[in-house]
Amino acid sequence: MICSDNSETSNNSNLHVLAISGGVGGAKLALGLSHILAPEQLTIVANTGDDFDYLGLSISPDLDTVMYTLANLSNKQQGWGLADETWSCMEALTKLNTESWFQLGDKDMATHIYRTSRLKEGATLTQVTEELCTSMGIEHRIIPMTDDKVSTIVQTRDGELAFQNYFVKEQCKPSVTGFYFQGIEQAKPQKKLLELIQSDQLSSIIICPSNPFVSVDPLLQLKDIKQLIKQQSAPMVAISPIVGGSAIKGPAAKMFTELGLDCNCVGVAKFYGSLLDGFIIDTIDAKYKTAIEEMGIPCLVTQTVMQSLEDRIQLGKDALNFACSL
Amino acid sequence: MICSDNSETSNNSNLHVLAISGGVGGAKLALGLSHILAPEQLTIVANTGDDFDYLGLSISPDLDTVMYTLANLSNKQQGWGLADETWSCMEALTKLNTESWFQLGDKDMATHIYRTSRLKEGATLTQVTEELCTSMGIEHRIIPMTDDKVSTIVQTRDGELAFQNYFVKEQCKPSVTGFYFQGIEQAKPQKKLLELIQSDQLSSIIICPSNPFVSVDPLLQLKDIKQLIKQQSAPMVAISPIVGGSAIKGPAAKMFTELGLDCNCVGVAKFYGSLLDGFIIDTIDAKYKTAIEEMGIPCLVTQTVMQSLEDRIQLGKDALNFACSL
Repeated sequence: MICSDNSETSNNSNLHVLAISGGVGGAKLALGLSHILAPEQLTIVANTGDDFDYLGLSISPDLDTVMYTLANLSNKQQGWGLADETWSCMEALTKLNTESWFQLGDKDMATHIYRTSRLKEGATLTQVTEELCTSMGIEHRIIPMTDDKVSTIVQTRDGELAFQNYFVKEQCKPSVTGFYFQGIEQAKPQKKLLELIQSDQLSSIIICPSNPFVSVDPLLQLKDIKQLIKQQSAPMVAISPIVGGSAIKGPAAKMFTELGLDCNCVGVAKFYGSLLDGFIIDTIDAKYKTAIEEMGIPCLVTQTVMQSLEDRIQLGKDALNFACSL
Repeated sequence: MICSDNSETSNNSNLHVLAISGGVGGAKLALGLSHILAPEQLTIVANTGDDFDYLGLSISPDLDTVMYTLANLSNKQQGWGLADETWSCMEALTKLNTESWFQLGDKDMATHIYRTSRLKEGATLTQVTEELCTSMGIEHRIIPMTDDKVSTIVQTRDGELAFQNYFVKEQCKPSVTGFYFQGIEQAKPQKKLLELIQSDQLSSIIICPSNPFVSVDPLLQLKDIKQLIKQQSAPMVAISPIVGGSAIKGPAAKMFTELGLDCNCVGVAKFYGSLLDGFIIDTIDAKYKTAIEEMGIPCLVTQTVMQSLEDRIQLGKDALNFACSL
């Protein structure tokens, strides 16, 4: 199913959905979409602006969260990492007086060792991700936004911080004044991403409920991407990660406030602006529907908070049907 | 104690012992020596010809065995690795279809991650080893034989094999025809090793009961080392790793046989030849004492099989006293 049952395109298996995801929130919807769409109908592109080197290992937090979620291996309580994890290696590393502010479980460590080793051998991040997905039994395609190095820098009143330093080490405490993406000018969008975004087989682009500033914007800032999205006739639909003035997870709401922006779904819609062909907000935010429509953006009000797998699938269906209606 | 209680040098704390060690057998005696000698009186130099890259990690098996043994962290049943180890990371790596013939425990993995990361940052193996020793609370100095890359290649009837491929992957099955040490011509002996071996403060060199071909010979083949040992007035004493025609651990006996050499302590003495100022054999091999002395090498017969810590300390004392008597 690409569109609703009544859609003219519903039986066209050549049609394809591109989902743009950050970490936890995005991965939830990506999982829902993977239960609706066949592997050949869905590509999930993950943010790599959060990627960093730690203890000599190449860590790709968003790619891993999406992979672990789709492989049904993620730690659902914790929100990151793997279920049934053990911590012996990290404990031993701590005794060796290494930096230990970013916790890596023993099983998770295997992913990073594998990735680091393959990248050292000359494989691209796309290849490594494909290999990891195959090993984990994931059938849907997950790609990084780029094979090149892009590093999100958070500008704060306490100075500039690499994203993970801000997010994990400083626990998002410093007040944010802006962002930039180191390496973004040189980074080439991932080949399949570029191909899809220009394809007439694309039926919709779904921006998952991820942090607009640090999970989605790095991809949008890649060379030519905004231009190509505007030229693409398939609709782009975003789901607000801000619900009732708060973020379900992470610092998005705090960032909106600190940047002096509307800390609600209207602020999110304004952030994406004219790129949006449709916007999905939670029932709790129904009062903002008119304001968004007055911006010229069709707006769907539905349940966007995903507790269960059924919620994830339902939001996926709602998003696809809404996109088809545009 | 550097020499026996009656020795003229016994109270001279400037005097120093150099112990040459491979893995398990050597580490046992090194531990014994560390219970007799103060940190400033003992340097243990470990073979690095077995070092290899695996899963992108820099592994130094002999250095690690010596460190883990002196830190009282080693797995005494298994003979390698750490006690109370867990295996989550390796299990996860196996699921990712990596090579998994060399088993690394979760806590052991921390050592390799740390080493790899520090080497990548530009630290020398000597520095990394010193840092690891400090973290593990080891007071005696453990040094690699060189900071440069030397790789032991085992020549077999089935072709050439990198040492760990022969030792672990092929479980020492191929029949050995010879050895060579890749990189040995370019490798500089570790600075402290060079310094000690030329020092007039050196009271003895103890070759621990390690494999002569693959654990001791790489060090002896380093540029100038044999020459400097011959010039050094302090005696060099070796303990036979072959007892009753067998090796306590590892393929030494099999190698002697396959190379057409005497598979007994006489074969070991012949291997070291004129470098030896004294040789220690086990009581079970007492019958070979005369043959060894006929080669012009003073020979001590004592218990060399080390089951308990007391055995390790006793052999250490025997070796030091024997060296002092020469």
